[in-house]
Amino acid sequence: MIKVIILGFGNVGQHLYQAFSRNSKVDVIQVFNRSPINFSEEFQVSFTTDIRQLKEADIYIIAVPDDTIQELSKKLPLKNKLVVHTSGSVALNHLSDNNKKGVFYPLQTFSKNAVVDFKSIPICIEANNKEDLKSLKQLGSAISENIQEINSKEREQLHLSAVFVNNFVNYLYQVGSDLLLDNSLSFDLLKPLIKETAKKMESLNPVDSQTGPAKRNDFKTIENHLHLLEGSPYKEIYEVMTKKIQNKNYK
Amino acid sequence: MIKVIILGFGNVGQHLYQAFSRNSKVDVIQVFNRSPINFSEEFQVSFTTDIRQLKEADIYIIAVPDDTIQELSKKLPLKNKLVVHTSGSVALNHLSDNNKKGVFYPLQTFSKNAVVDFKSIPICIEANNKEDLKSLKQLGSAISENIQEINSKEREQLHLSAVFVNNFVNYLYQVGSDLLLDNSLSFDLLKPLIKETAKKMESLNPVDSQTGPAKRNDFKTIENHLHLLEGSPYKEIYEVMTKKIQNKNYK
Repeated sequence: MIKVIILGFGNVGQHLYQAFSRNSKVDVIQVFNRSPINFSEEFQVSFTTDIRQLKEADIYIIAVPDDTIQELSKKLPLKNKLVVHTSGSVALNHLSDNNKKGVFYPLQTFSKNAVVDFKSIPICIEANNKEDLKSLKQLGSAISENIQEINSKEREQLHLSAVFVNNFVNYLYQVGSDLLLDNSLSFDLLKPLIKETAKKMESLNPVDSQTGPAKRNDFKTIENHLHLLEGSPYKEIYEVMTKKIQNKNYK
Repeated sequence: MIKVIILGFGNVGQHLYQAFSRNSKVDVIQVFNRSPINFSEEFQVSFTTDIRQLKEADIYIIAVPDDTIQELSKKLPLKNKLVVHTSGSVALNHLSDNNKKGVFYPLQTFSKNAVVDFKSIPICIEANNKEDLKSLKQLGSAISENIQEINSKEREQLHLSAVFVNNFVNYLYQVGSDLLLDNSLSFDLLKPLIKETAKKMESLNPVDSQTGPAKRNDFKTIENHLHLLEGSPYKEIYEVMTKKIQNKNYK
């Protein structure tokens, strides 16, 4: 049984807690959060807002906003324990030297009220020695079948790529939804297309699945789309993306 | 039994043929294509490259590239038949006056070698009279549970939105894949994230599911990402998308 304490109980902390509590190999013995939390019934765990009250555990998981990770890691009243953070964009060495450093980064998007199946989520782990890596591998394996050793430099690139395929893609969904709304059409119309566009990545690579007016240099349709977007804040996105896709054609 | 002839046997034509042949309400009695086709065994249908040899059918479905629809519709040796096209961006009145005009636009992305389940695909239909609309509704209902009456103006907007959530989204997948490849990391790492990002749209709206450095105005991470993208053709996309997401915040 791996004893774990989760520090910070936002989206990532809560999703990790739920994933860990569903299996028998990990015991979340305590949750720390700077401010009190209204626990719903599903969370039955020892909770504290007092950092001096931290218990003894095998792994301490920091799941706070990126810009507060370093500060919290320095404040921990611990010595030579394995302390890991869960961020895609913070380097391993940002953690305090007081403890053994590690990263436990689940490459996924977490929202309130959306249950996540961890099984296929890549858990990107990093540590300074084999023993700590082994501990993180064990912890990850309890919830996922996809454990990856990724160093800080690689993780940074991974996080950047994730911004493109998650944050920016989600924003394009928003654009699609907005354009339909302006014409009293339902976003539901686009949902099967959104689903299939993502599903294709299971079997095709994105170069092969690229279609549309920009790809086939269909200038007449592009012209018409730009005309429809006259005065819209989304015209700039259309122009940039179209230009990029067209350049790609000539690569 | 609705007798159908498919004119043009590219991606859309072939997917429609497959969908129709899987049910008993529609009979594809003939396929026309400008050039001969190497039929695989799965296609058992009367085929012609000679437009003068077209048979008698209830509905003629034009599934050729957008810029050749009008020309083909003019050439058809038919009078007062129901002739429809399958395009998102071509207006109903582009079809020749020789016949009754209609649109049968399946809002989905079709690729070779990717079997598509038509059941939930919105089939957007348009016609000039109730009788023809009824025929198209019957035809659509044979393969989909999601038949929508959409006029040419609405369809144009729908197609534009589809470009954002399909073509541009697919291109962002390509960017993610490229950035990883440059660092010898596998695109597989992003696939669970891509899947979940799309899946969220089933239960959340895109405004609520927007996350990331741009959304939370995390300037430090944005700075670092722009630094990582120095000299990359993708920097411009990052800048535009980030700016748009940030402006959205202040709406």
